Amino acid sequence: MIKTESNLEEKYQIHPIGKVHSPHTSLAGMPIQPKGCPDVFGEIIIYDEYVDGLQDLGGFSHIYLLYFFHQAKRTQLRVVPFMDTQERGVFATRSPLRPNHIGLSVVRLHEIDGNRLTVSGLDILDGTPLLDIKPYIDKFDFVSQSSSGWMQADEEEIRQKRSDSRFL
Amino acid sequence: MIKTESNLEEKYQIHPIGKVHSPHTSLAGMPIQPKGCPDVFGEIIIYDEYVDGLQDLGGFSHIYLLYFFHQAKRTQLRVVPFMDTQERGVFATRSPLRPNHIGLSVVRLHEIDGNRLTVSGLDILDGTPLLDIKPYIDKFDFVSQSSSGWMQADEEEIRQKRSDSRFL
Repeated sequence: MIKTESNLEEKYQIHPIGKVHSPHTSLAGMPIQPKGCPDVFGEIIIYDEYVDGLQDLGGFSHIYLLYFFHQAKRTQLRVVPFMDTQERGVFATRSPLRPNHIGLSVVRLHEIDGNRLTVSGLDILDGTPLLDIKPYIDKFDFVSQSSSGWMQADEEEIRQKRSDSRFL
Repeated sequence: MIKTESNLEEKYQIHPIGKVHSPHTSLAGMPIQPKGCPDVFGEIIIYDEYVDGLQDLGGFSHIYLLYFFHQAKRTQLRVVPFMDTQERGVFATRSPLRPNHIGLSVVRLHEIDGNRLTVSGLDILDGTPLLDIKPYIDKFDFVSQSSSGWMQADEEEIRQKRSDSRFL
């Protein structure tokens, strides 16, 4: 094992490009993933100065949203995920309590009207700062066969599962 | 269209959790996506203080890497993507010249030895600062049907395509 320490001087600044408007106004009781809420619609408002970058996005049915878990105030390297009862390394989970509080969701894109995107499958807290949008591109992103370690829940469990306050 | 301006005070700091070691030492001539380089192996070294978060990750065959496009020094809202000849909005592309220089790749995970991850399908520049690792979870992330707008290249074109210096 190579010993390496991080250089504490090495930091980057990021800033919101817009904001997520969703029906989820509290961290407890939320769906835990887009697959848990296919029928939840919401809007993304993009700040004026970035609207030009939305050109041609309308042709994509699915988009990645990168956002800042703005209510996560701490890092915890071992967490008990919502879909599990055992502690797991945070990088083996989607918990917000990671060293960099960046979240990732793939949502369905329905419409773009100026600076407003209508999306569904929204598992993101209302008011969340958006960092980036990337197109989901089947030929880049499709994974045909994979194994998912500890995560053995079935689709019904994912649909039923709701968050609690463990990651506050 | 709701007029909204960004709050320039709203910024977040992020920091590397490790570094990517890959055979790609120059931005020109690189594969443009993991699908363009399934046989390219490389290593991720995680900084000591975060190694504990890797627990249980070994059970996953694929992982998302979030990283900082450290050689991207500017933002450009319209770009000509590598796989296209026309200008597109940057959010409809994977170009590094986005407002927040954060990249996303899904790679195959082969082995974890202490703080060292061996991965393949690596389309990331050598020395790139790593921001996050998330497990690829089929039941969360699988998109069964999607449309990809302007991106109509076939798998052979993606495999053949190599980058040039347009995004420097």
